[in-house]
Amino acid sequence: MKMIAGGVCAAKGFLANGIHCGIRKNKQKRDLSLIYSEVPANAAAVYTTNLVKGAPLAVTRRHLQNGVAQAVICNSGNANTCNANGIEIAEAMSGLLAEKMNISAEDVVVASTGVIGQPLDITPIKEGIPSLVAGLSAQNGALAAEGIMTTDTKKKEVAVSFEVGGVTCHLGGIAKGSGMIHPNMATMLVFITTDCKISSGMLQKALSSDVQNTFNMVSIDGDTSTNDMVTVLANGMAGNCEIDSEGAEFDVFMKALNTVTVALCRMIAGDGEGATKLLECRVTGADDEAVAKTVAKSVICSSLTKAAMFGADANWGRVLCAIGYSGAKVDVTRVGVSFVSKKGEIEVCRDGSGVDFSEEKAKEILLESEIEIRVSLGEGAFGATAWGCDLTYDYVKINGDYRT
Amino acid sequence: MKMIAGGVCAAKGFLANGIHCGIRKNKQKRDLSLIYSEVPANAAAVYTTNLVKGAPLAVTRRHLQNGVAQAVICNSGNANTCNANGIEIAEAMSGLLAEKMNISAEDVVVASTGVIGQPLDITPIKEGIPSLVAGLSAQNGALAAEGIMTTDTKKKEVAVSFEVGGVTCHLGGIAKGSGMIHPNMATMLVFITTDCKISSGMLQKALSSDVQNTFNMVSIDGDTSTNDMVTVLANGMAGNCEIDSEGAEFDVFMKALNTVTVALCRMIAGDGEGATKLLECRVTGADDEAVAKTVAKSVICSSLTKAAMFGADANWGRVLCAIGYSGAKVDVTRVGVSFVSKKGEIEVCRDGSGVDFSEEKAKEILLESEIEIRVSLGEGAFGATAWGCDLTYDYVKINGDYRT
Repeated sequence: MKMIAGGVCAAKGFLANGIHCGIRKNKQKRDLSLIYSEVPANAAAVYTTNLVKGAPLAVTRRHLQNGVAQAVICNSGNANTCNANGIEIAEAMSGLLAEKMNISAEDVVVASTGVIGQPLDITPIKEGIPSLVAGLSAQNGALAAEGIMTTDTKKKEVAVSFEVGGVTCHLGGIAKGSGMIHPNMATMLVFITTDCKISSGMLQKALSSDVQNTFNMVSIDGDTSTNDMVTVLANGMAGNCEIDSEGAEFDVFMKALNTVTVALCRMIAGDGEGATKLLECRVTGADDEAVAKTVAKSVICSSLTKAAMFGADANWGRVLCAIGYSGAKVDVTRVGVSFVSKKGEIEVCRDGSGVDFSEEKAKEILLESEIEIRVSLGEGAFGATAWGCDLTYDYVKINGDYRT
Repeated sequence: MKMIAGGVCAAKGFLANGIHCGIRKNKQKRDLSLIYSEVPANAAAVYTTNLVKGAPLAVTRRHLQNGVAQAVICNSGNANTCNANGIEIAEAMSGLLAEKMNISAEDVVVASTGVIGQPLDITPIKEGIPSLVAGLSAQNGALAAEGIMTTDTKKKEVAVSFEVGGVTCHLGGIAKGSGMIHPNMATMLVFITTDCKISSGMLQKALSSDVQNTFNMVSIDGDTSTNDMVTVLANGMAGNCEIDSEGAEFDVFMKALNTVTVALCRMIAGDGEGATKLLECRVTGADDEAVAKTVAKSVICSSLTKAAMFGADANWGRVLCAIGYSGAKVDVTRVGVSFVSKKGEIEVCRDGSGVDFSEEKAKEILLESEIEIRVSLGEGAFGATAWGCDLTYDYVKINGDYRT
C-alpha cells in the first residue's frame, strides 16, 4: 500500500470540482462541490444518529437504496436542516444536477453543511451548476475539498494505491469537519472514492465496520451534528475481479479504507475548531474492546483534560477523573498514564497514583502539536484509539458568534 | 417558608469556622473549614459516582454507616485523591479533630477539594486545628463557606425557616463548586445543617430523592468530579416531634430542603468556571420525566450552545441539535424553543423549524446574566429543569493552567 496524491480523484474515472456560487458572502470561499464518476458506482453510506437530521440525508438515504450512485453534490454555508422546505430544496439540488449531467436524480448523493435553521436559497446553486459541471476534472479534487469546508482551516484529502488480485486499485477521500463533531455511527462529511470493483453489499459492510474504529472515535466538542455522513463510491474501473465476499482481498480493501479514514480522522481532529493540538488517546490492557473505546472517548471528550493540554499542563488527575466517570468498569488501582510526543514519553501515573516526574520534561513534551495520551488498564489484551483536540480560547471565539 | 440569613449556622446548635492553615500558598485564602453541632446529629450523604473516588469519601462513608455525625472538616487546595496514603491522611484529619473536640472520630465527616494526585501534607492541618476549633461560632458560617472555595468566585450559602407541627425549624447550607461539575447521584461539596428533628432514614430518603432534581441537574463542564459529596446533619434542637415517616411534615421538610438546594444549584451554575451567565433549561411537554431530564441536561451540556450564549447569539439550531442527540425519544417536528430573561421572551423555533424573530430583541434578551432556555416537546405533561453556564475564554484560561 502506498500513499498517493489526488485525493478524491486518485481513483480512475473520478472527476471533481468546487466553485463559489454565492451561498456564502465571501467570494473567496468555494461553497459548492461536485464529485462525479464516469460510470455508475456501487455506493455505501453511514449517517448521523442525531434525531434532528438534515434534509439532504433523508434524500440521499432514499437515493442510495439501490446501492448505486454516480455523483455527489455538496454545499457549505447552510446545513439545510430544520427548514420547512428542506426536502424540496435537497431534491431540487439533486434534480438540477442530474438534469444537467443527464443522469438519474436517484444516482445523486446530496449533502449540506453550515448553519442550521436558515432557509437555503436554491437560486445560487441553480445558477452555479453549469460552471460547476463545466469545470469537472481529474485535477480538481482539491477544489472539491475546499468547497465543503466550513470553519475548517485546512482542506482534508488523502489517497492510497493497493493491489487486489494483481491489479492496482486506488482509494481516496476528502472530508470536512471542525465543530459539532462527536460522531456515533457516522460523522462529519466524508466522501471516499475508489476504482476497486466491490459489490455494494461488501462496500457497506466495509464502511459500517470501519467507522466504528475511526470516525466514531473522533470528538471535537461532544456535539453530534445533524448532518454527518460518510459515503464511498466504488466504480470498478481498476478492473479487478469483483470483491463479493470476505477473504484476503476484502481484507486488503479494508486495510486501504482504514488507512484513508484514519488519516482523515487525524486531519479532522487536528483541525478541530480553535485547536492548537491533535490529541490521540491510546488505551491498552482492557478486558474487552468496549471498555477500551469507552475509556479512550471519555478522556478525549473531557473539557478539563482538553484545556490542560492547551496549557501544556501535565494535569493527569483529570485523565484519571475522566476514566473514572466514563461508565466503563475499570480497576482504577491498576491504571497507568503517560504523555507522549515527538519529544519523548513521560510516565505520570502508575497503579492509580502519581509518580514523581520532571515538570520541565512534561512541559517540553506537551508543547508539541501532536500529543498521545497513553492509558494502560492492566487487565486484558484489548485496546482502542480516540482522536480529539485541545480546548482553546479560539473555540469559544469561533462559537460565541458563528452566525454573524 | 422564609429565606433567612446565617447559612450553615442558621439552625440551632450549629457553629462553624474557616481559617487559612497553609495548604494554599495564598495567605488571604481560607483553606480549612469546620462545621460543628453541639449535640450528635442524624446524618445523610450522597457521593460521586466516579470510580476514582477521593480518599475522604471512603472514610466518610464508613463514619456515616450508623447515620450519626457531629462535625464536618473540609480542606480546599488539595483533593487528597489518587494518593497512595490518601486514606491514612483522611483518617488523620478526622482523628486529630475528634481528639481536640473530645468526640468520636466516627462522628466526623471529612472532605477535601482541589488538585488531584498531589500528596496532602497533614502538618498544616494538624497545626491549624486548635485555632479552627477556638474560633467556632454561630456567626462564622460565612468563613466556613469561604474555606471550601476553590476556583469559586463567590461564597455560596443560603438558609430557610419553616414550621413542623407548630415548631419553627431552620435549614441552611453552604456549597463549593465551579469546575469538574457534572454530577450524577451527588455533586460538588455541599454541607447542609438543620435543627429539625428527623430520623436518619427519612433524612437519607429526603436527600437521595432531592438530589435527583437538583444537584444531579447541574453541569458546568461535563466532568464528574472524584470528590463530590452532599451531606445533611439534623441535630433535632428545634424540638419538633421527630419526622420518622412520610406525610405532611416530611413534605414540608422536603420543600425546605429543595428551596435550599435549588438556590445552591443556581449559585453553583452561575459561578461556574469562567461563567458570565447562569443558564437554566426548562423542558415541558415531555411524555415522561426521564425524557424531560435527558433533554434539559443535553442542552445545558452542549459546548456549542454554551458558547453561543456567551456570545449572546440566538443560534437555536444548536439547541435543536442537542435535543436530537440527547438519546431521548422526541418527535423533533413538535419541538418549540424560546429564550427568556428579565428583558422578555422571544420564540425562535416552532414545530422543529425556525420562526421569524427580531435579532435585536434576541440580543437584548441574551445579554442578561440569567438566561432561561425554554423547550416545549408538545407530547405530554412532564417537565424538568437543568442548570449550567456559558462557555467562555476564562473557562479555558482557568483550566489551561490550573496547577501553577
